[in-house]
Amino acid sequence: MSKVREIAILGSTGSIGANTLDVIDRLGPGYRVTALAAGSNLRALAAQIAKYRPRLVSVEKKGSADALRPAARKHGVRLAWGPEGAEEVAAGGSADTVVSAITGIDGFRPTLAAVRAGRRVALANKESMVVGGPFLRREAARSGSRIIPVDSEHSGVFQCLAKERKSRVRRVILTASGGPFFRTALRDIGAKSPAEVVRHPRWKMGRKVSVDSATLMNKGLELIEARWLFDLEPDRLAVLIHPQATVHSLVEMADGSVLAQLSVTDMRIPIQYALTWPDRRESDLPALDLGAVRSLQFFEVEGRRYPLFGLALEALRRGRSLPVALNAANETVVGAFLDGRIAFLDIPGIIFRVMEAHRESAVESIDGIFEIDREARRAAGRLLRQR
Amino acid sequence: MSKVREIAILGSTGSIGANTLDVIDRLGPGYRVTALAAGSNLRALAAQIAKYRPRLVSVEKKGSADALRPAARKHGVRLAWGPEGAEEVAAGGSADTVVSAITGIDGFRPTLAAVRAGRRVALANKESMVVGGPFLRREAARSGSRIIPVDSEHSGVFQCLAKERKSRVRRVILTASGGPFFRTALRDIGAKSPAEVVRHPRWKMGRKVSVDSATLMNKGLELIEARWLFDLEPDRLAVLIHPQATVHSLVEMADGSVLAQLSVTDMRIPIQYALTWPDRRESDLPALDLGAVRSLQFFEVEGRRYPLFGLALEALRRGRSLPVALNAANETVVGAFLDGRIAFLDIPGIIFRVMEAHRESAVESIDGIFEIDREARRAAGRLLRQR
Repeated sequence: MSKVREIAILGSTGSIGANTLDVIDRLGPGYRVTALAAGSNLRALAAQIAKYRPRLVSVEKKGSADALRPAARKHGVRLAWGPEGAEEVAAGGSADTVVSAITGIDGFRPTLAAVRAGRRVALANKESMVVGGPFLRREAARSGSRIIPVDSEHSGVFQCLAKERKSRVRRVILTASGGPFFRTALRDIGAKSPAEVVRHPRWKMGRKVSVDSATLMNKGLELIEARWLFDLEPDRLAVLIHPQATVHSLVEMADGSVLAQLSVTDMRIPIQYALTWPDRRESDLPALDLGAVRSLQFFEVEGRRYPLFGLALEALRRGRSLPVALNAANETVVGAFLDGRIAFLDIPGIIFRVMEAHRESAVESIDGIFEIDREARRAAGRLLRQR
Repeated sequence: MSKVREIAILGSTGSIGANTLDVIDRLGPGYRVTALAAGSNLRALAAQIAKYRPRLVSVEKKGSADALRPAARKHGVRLAWGPEGAEEVAAGGSADTVVSAITGIDGFRPTLAAVRAGRRVALANKESMVVGGPFLRREAARSGSRIIPVDSEHSGVFQCLAKERKSRVRRVILTASGGPFFRTALRDIGAKSPAEVVRHPRWKMGRKVSVDSATLMNKGLELIEARWLFDLEPDRLAVLIHPQATVHSLVEMADGSVLAQLSVTDMRIPIQYALTWPDRRESDLPALDLGAVRSLQFFEVEGRRYPLFGLALEALRRGRSLPVALNAANETVVGAFLDGRIAFLDIPGIIFRVMEAHRESAVESIDGIFEIDREARRAAGRLLRQR
């Protein structure tokens, strides 16, 4: 490793951010953190500042920046804030790799900035592709930016596709663990509390994505992400339930051969791959022991268990404004569930009603994306208040 | 497809040979059979001559060539015979791809001839690598020959390794179905007849390899083949029992990511891959349906169920003359079992005794390989006669 790789992290105090820093610790010299953007977890951020001494740190609010000023001064760190701050972390400075791990649509603009700046983008923010896939593809083609997925499923596809010609890909299958209620009787699912819903059987993740995993909306959004990440038509994308979450994805080639990627369920594996790509580096994480796992199971998705998945498939197929609206409605309604305002079983119904009322349109611009997003959030908010 | 690919087949009337011709039929124009070598199945060979009109056909014995003369004359086919004939099929003419599918050590010299001639070799004859791996590697490096494996397990490894750096490979795992007696009580295995032994649960194969599959010797030989095919040290090679035979092999990378190759159990898939590599072509064979397979199981190898597998591991680790002697002893003893001369449970004991008496030596030359081979066959023959 001759040149030191400089890394900027968008969302450094979240689950992916913390795992990224752990990977960088393990990789040792050769990788250096030069910029961080985070929300409001100032305690974690202050510790990161002291440990990594990045050149630039951005936070959500100016007040947070003020609170961090003494620590920043001590360690020679420049502070920024707001959307502009996040975009500077993404596109300013000399980082060659930007880890995009802000949750939700908030991650889109900084991701776009990193892509426009020609950076390598380790993409964990799936919403960027869901709401603005065609824009990101176009900008990446223009700037030469390489987008390497961090989601385990997409990382698996990326690895399997390595030397294959896309025209020879028959189908890409993402696996879904099925979430915590895959084997729960349908009549017992409705009363599940947020705490039960976010207790995911395989992955440790943020709360919002854990709910999406229980509804399978997460997998629907991942299909839309894959559609743009790999430029594959919707009918070449599929999902299988795989409760062991060991096989992350499968690529079926034209000749009937299927390539798959497997690992233990540890996000640090795809994160490290995105950082070291096109090479790989040793990892001291526990290896996959298939003799101990013993059985890998696969099931078709049961539609009535996961009503939102069907809705996501429709958004995948029709495209246009539908993925943006669906993502916005889902974020709003899941937020209400996590705040204890609605029951788990209320989630799909409200989202269905938002989508029924949604007026489908083309997405002409970046601003257009945010207009569609706001409108769907408003519609979801109205329905939530009416209850 | 601009240029027509010319293909020579060594062992055209065997199971792999027949499957290769079927693949070529399905691939349609762009692939042409130009030379065939076969043993003594003249009826099948005459039909192949009439259908494919190759330029050259070689058979084992001059008498067979004489019998084919009228058919050959009618279709403008030149005839040859004996080892020289097979080598001419392998190295003469203008074929760019040679499918090496003669069973046993008899396949080695024609394979070597094809490699020396710089042909692409689609290798189904595992014994070539078992007895002469280092020689084949050296000659391929000299001539520029590419050796593409046809064994499903090795084809899977080859596909997974595509763009990976070998230094980043932690471990290669070949799967074994476990054969027909994987779940049979140990005390019931001994009395199995040849007909029961060759009734393989997953693959349709020749009789000899079916017996090797029941003893797991086949997997031991495949490990030795993989050792040379991929130039991997013995401690980076492992086996898992996988009764569904859907995952053919797994490649564990340094970062803990595992790539795997899966397909239905149909040899035409790896054969077609070897013919079309580095591209792939459409296939109308049934696709793998994991939702229908439902469960993929993996088990460690149970040593006392497969005593010969331990012996093969020792030959893999120690190398030198051991793989040659082991393969020779196994061919001889399995032949005696298929002829009804000994019981299934007698196979390991006799092979163990041959190997105990074997004087380990370096393998200095091609002729040296055949000396070691003959000596082990003689030793096995003596033990068989003493019974």
